[in-house]
This record gives sequence, C-alpha cells and structure tokens, in this order.
Amino acid sequence: MNIRITCSSCGLEIPYQSGNWRCPRCSSTLKIDYVVSESGFRKEKLSGRSLTMWRYRELIPIRSENIISLGEGYTKIVKAGFLEEPHVNFKLDYLSPSGSFKDRGSSVAITHAKEIGAEAIVEDSSGNAGSSISLYSSAAGLKSRIYVPKDAPENKRDFMRLFGAEVMETQSREKAFQLAVSFLSEGEYYVGHLWNPFYIEGMKTMAFECVEQLNWSSPDYVITPVASGTLLLGLYKGFNEFMDLGLTDKVPVIIGVQAEGYAPIYESFTGVKMKWAGKSLLADALRVCNPPRLREIVDALRRSGGKMIVVNDGEILESLKIGFKKGFFIEPSSATAIAAYKRFLEEGFFRKGEKILIPLTGSGFKAMDKLRTLKLT
Amino acid sequence: MNIRITCSSCGLEIPYQSGNWRCPRCSSTLKIDYVVSESGFRKEKLSGRSLTMWRYRELIPIRSENIISLGEGYTKIVKAGFLEEPHVNFKLDYLSPSGSFKDRGSSVAITHAKEIGAEAIVEDSSGNAGSSISLYSSAAGLKSRIYVPKDAPENKRDFMRLFGAEVMETQSREKAFQLAVSFLSEGEYYVGHLWNPFYIEGMKTMAFECVEQLNWSSPDYVITPVASGTLLLGLYKGFNEFMDLGLTDKVPVIIGVQAEGYAPIYESFTGVKMKWAGKSLLADALRVCNPPRLREIVDALRRSGGKMIVVNDGEILESLKIGFKKGFFIEPSSATAIAAYKRFLEEGFFRKGEKILIPLTGSGFKAMDKLRTLKLT
Repeated sequence: MNIRITCSSCGLEIPYQSGNWRCPRCSSTLKIDYVVSESGFRKEKLSGRSLTMWRYRELIPIRSENIISLGEGYTKIVKAGFLEEPHVNFKLDYLSPSGSFKDRGSSVAITHAKEIGAEAIVEDSSGNAGSSISLYSSAAGLKSRIYVPKDAPENKRDFMRLFGAEVMETQSREKAFQLAVSFLSEGEYYVGHLWNPFYIEGMKTMAFECVEQLNWSSPDYVITPVASGTLLLGLYKGFNEFMDLGLTDKVPVIIGVQAEGYAPIYESFTGVKMKWAGKSLLADALRVCNPPRLREIVDALRRSGGKMIVVNDGEILESLKIGFKKGFFIEPSSATAIAAYKRFLEEGFFRKGEKILIPLTGSGFKAMDKLRTLKLT
Repeated sequence: MNIRITCSSCGLEIPYQSGNWRCPRCSSTLKIDYVVSESGFRKEKLSGRSLTMWRYRELIPIRSENIISLGEGYTKIVKAGFLEEPHVNFKLDYLSPSGSFKDRGSSVAITHAKEIGAEAIVEDSSGNAGSSISLYSSAAGLKSRIYVPKDAPENKRDFMRLFGAEVMETQSREKAFQLAVSFLSEGEYYVGHLWNPFYIEGMKTMAFECVEQLNWSSPDYVITPVASGTLLLGLYKGFNEFMDLGLTDKVPVIIGVQAEGYAPIYESFTGVKMKWAGKSLLADALRVCNPPRLREIVDALRRSGGKMIVVNDGEILESLKIGFKKGFFIEPSSATAIAAYKRFLEEGFFRKGEKILIPLTGSGFKAMDKLRTLKLT
C-alpha cells in the first residue's frame, strides 16, 4: 500500500520520515492518504490472527514491520439490558493495557515514532493519552516527557511516572500543549494525539472490530464521548473503509457527547454559543477547549447524520451509578455516553430493534481519587 | 451433562442447591463430578461465540442459563522477548473486569449463588478475590460482605466499597476467614474461593484458552503464582479435560511460585519445613498460610511433573521492573512468576524451542499505593 502524509488543508505532501505534527506551510492538521482497495485486506485472512487491533494489519498505514503492541484493541462487546431496551452493546475499551481506548492510537503513533528514529517522545494530555504514551514509550525503549494540567488525576500522573515518563505539571490543559511544543529538541517526537494522523488510524480499528464482532454488520448508532475527537474521527473513518471494502452495509449515526462547560464541538455543530450554568468537575478527561480537528469532526458528524449532546455532572453521576450496577468499572468521563443514551432513550428517540453501541473508554482505576469522594451506592 | 457435587475426601454427595462450602460430614473440600465426554462440547462450535470464557459453556458445570458475565476470560496472549529467549507467552489476565484472574472464578461462583437463590454474598480475601466478588455481586443484584486483613491494599478495599460491598477489616488473613464463616446467616452464600469448587471450574477456562490460542496445542510449561491454588488446580483440570476430549496432546509441566515467608505449598511439596530469612512485603496477594486444598495442589503438581519455587522481594522488585519495561502494568504478586522464570532461565533449565506460558494475574492499578513507594525506573 502506497502511504502518503498530506496537509488536510493545503494538500502539501509531508515526507513520511519527517515527524512533523502539523503542516509546515499552513499549520493545519495532517492526514494519511492511501487507497484502501489496494491494501490486500480480506476478511478471510482474519482466522487465526492475533486478538488485537493489528489483526487488520493491512489497513493500518504503517510501513514498519516492528510493531509496538501490548495486546491493545479487539476489546470485548458485552450486551447489557438498559431500562426497557435489552440490546445495548458496550465495548470494553477500559480494559486496555493502560486502561483506556488511547492505547489504539498510541500503538500506531509510537510504532511510527520508533520507525522514523525518534529518540524521545513528547506529549501533552489531560491524563489518559499521557498514561498510554508513557506505557508504549517504555515498551519501545524510548524516554517520554508528558505535560499535564496540574489537576490531572493523581493516579494518571503516577501511572506516567511508573513507566518512566518525566511528568511536567502545568497550569492548564492549554498551557500543557503550549509548553510541549515550545521545548521540542532535535530527535524528540511530539505525539500530539489531538494532531497526530497516525493516532486516528489506530482509533479506526474500533469500527472494524464492531463490524466483525456484530457478525459483519454495523450498529445503527454509536454514542461516544468527544474531547479531541480522535475516536469519533477514527470511528467514522473505520466504518467508511469497511463500506469501501464491501464488509458492512452502513456507517452508523454517530452521537458525540461533551460535558457542560467544555463543549466546543457542540457549539460549532449547532452554531449556538452557550452560556453554561457550570463547568463539569467529573468529566476531567474531556476538557479540550480548542480541538485542532474541529472542522473535520463537525464534518464527520454531519456526514454520518450525527448529533451532539451535552450532559451535566448530575447526569454523569447518575450514569456512573448505572454503569457500576452493571459491573462496569469506568471513569466519570466515560459515563457521559451512558448519560447521553439515557436522555435519548427517555425522549423515545430510538426505534425498536435498533442496534446501539457505546464504547466504554476509560478505567475507573485511574479516577480512584475522584470516585472515592462520590456517593455511588 | 449430569452435574454432581461430592466431597473430595469421603465422597458424600451434596445437593446442588445446598450452597455448602465444605463437606457437612468430614469438613473436607468439595468437588464437582461430571463426565466430560457427555458435555457435547466440540471445537467446531466455537466459531462466532462470545470472546469470553463462556465460549466453552458446555464444559462449565452450571445448570443455570442466567449467566453473570462481564466479559471475563479469553484474555490475550502477548509474546515478548526475554533475555535470549524470544518466545515467552504472557497471558494478560490483569486486563480482566476487576483487574485480576479471579473474575473467572467469580463469574461461575456468583452465577451459582444466584441460581440457588442466595440473598447475599460473603467472602474473605487478601484483596483480589474480594474486589472481584464485589463486582460480580453488584452485577447480579446481590449484596456482599467481604472480610479482609486490615493491611489489604487501599485500592482493593476501596474497589469493594465502590461496588457496594460491606468491607470488614480484620487483624489478619486467617482472622478474615474465621470471621467470615462464623457470622453466616440464612440466605447468605459463602463464596470462600479457597474452598468453592465452582471457582476452580472458572479457573480451568484459562487452560482451554491457552490451547485454543496456541493453535490447538499446549505450552510445555506454565509458570503461575500460587496462594489458594485455585488457578493451579484449574489449569491442571482444564488441560486434562482438553486431553480427554482429544483437543490437545499434553498437560504442561506446572511450575508454582510462592513468596518468601508464605510458602506452605512449597514446604509440603518438598517436604522441607523452611526457616525464612524474611517475609515478603511485596507479594500481598499471596499470603495464604493454610490452603484447604493443599493436598490436591501437591497432587496436581506431582502429576504434571511440576515444580515449586520460592522467590524473595529483591527478585520480585527486579521482575516487576522487567514487566514494566515490557509494558505490563502488573501488581508485585504477579511479578513472582517472572522472577521464577528468570531463575529457571538463568539455570539453563529450559530447552531451545520449548513453549512457556506465564499468566499475568493482577493489575498494577490495585497496588498503586505500594508501587508509588518503589523505585522502578
């Protein structure tokens, strides 16, 4: 497969080996170009392959054969009853190597960093991406330096340190990004999961898995939390690629969920600038105010016939309780998708028999400090 | 399949509905009798089945069709290089719903408790089994009360509370057991994972998975930490059942690992009463001094041509570092198996090309408090 990196805005081609995190000409986000039908992937090849996202190897545009994999992806789908609706499919990405869906993106991005000869990894994160990047950097034998807001959950910061990352605490999520890109040295690879196109190529495997695990069909709806939007973009791309290959019959309607006070995608999608009554304290993993792929995310939502919804901390807490009662040990940010589902369900939005998929994105273990303070039972 | 519960010592048959945790006549452990060839299981049936341990449904002796499942089992195997030996298979049970291999046993035991009409669950545990039982009890809609030693890791105690368990802190692991069985009321089901025969029926699925995932063959060696011995007994049983069904060609040599100061199985197996220089502080999940199935465990070790080994905290710390470098976020107790492997490897014990499997049993997340205090990088 012929793999090219290009600017999503001006079309400039970027050398595969460059490690650029944005277009050197117009500062826009990058994307990866290839022709999916030339990948050589066929579903008959899956039998006997590893139970990770790398079972779709031909569709992951990485030239290297030295894959940094820790068993990420191909997470389970558990069906659980929910009010009167018995067929919600929960995809258990919180049971990933570092405890979140970010491992899909990290596996691809760190494999790329390694293959182009990076000597160290730099990242900024509200916590989950940083944890994941520290883990994959360690496995790749690379040093990592992660910038986080100083109020990132303690267990996430400690996780990064346990895996050898130098953790730089900053005043805010925005500041973390600014400092990360200001102090890059020669040989350092800035992952920048909000920017990195390889990250999305990892995320799209969740769509492939949904189709395979739901007996080669797409769900009708996918309800996903949105912060940087890489999962949403990955899902949209993955379902489309399987459509292109004739492996599924539709792209699901994508419902994106944000939390009160941190809803730039909701605002852009609806065109309404909101005045929020408060700012979510619970959804700490969703605090991205300026997603660089905003335009792409809104476009993907529109093309999927999707929707955006904003939930508040009261709804998140209630949904966390629902999740716990079902036996899902998730973090509050992940419960936003359950809250969104609940609201749509109560409004009678879904038709009988429609298949709904909710990725459960992050583990409760990394939110232990916060969870301890909540009354959950 | 005709399922009977009998005493492992005097042979007394126990009614399936009784909920007895030991023989009412001679106080011995119980076992479950059935004829494996009458199960109706065939490997051709696996295609399209759920990616959990319940894919071997016919071989799990439970009458109920109302299974309490949270996506446990069918964990991934990741091959990782190790000194000069490139083919160690690590089985990632630490990425289970509650963060440990115990979920295999809990899924079966709580399903049984629910089917016989239990109103509440009682358990004693050093932490992992209690966490797992609290999770499955919550999913089954049952209250739980868990007795733990007061120095059980904080995150394990908090996990149980988050899932609604009443956590009873006691002076020691032994005391936890004594109190658990002293205050049982009508309608309460004592899981007692050291005793419960359904627990072993869950554990044996790890052997089934190894065979299926290693392309219908057994590894040459399985190296496993041993505390109550349920995993070791389950592995032995599972490989034997697949032998009986003609689905694999051998039972692997089982190498059991204990930690300094807590090694009753090592002492019984070798016949040498040890005077330990110290007691392991790191392997808190392995502190079982009087395993009720001691005789059965030693017997299984002998029949598999197995070995026992004891490792100390220095070796555990070093092996934890090795595990972390490879990207496995495990708890110290799980690193004992890596330490054992390392010792055998350095002694030149393994022959070239022999296949080794190491289950990684518990997540580092639940040991965060302890891990924070260690110098790991």
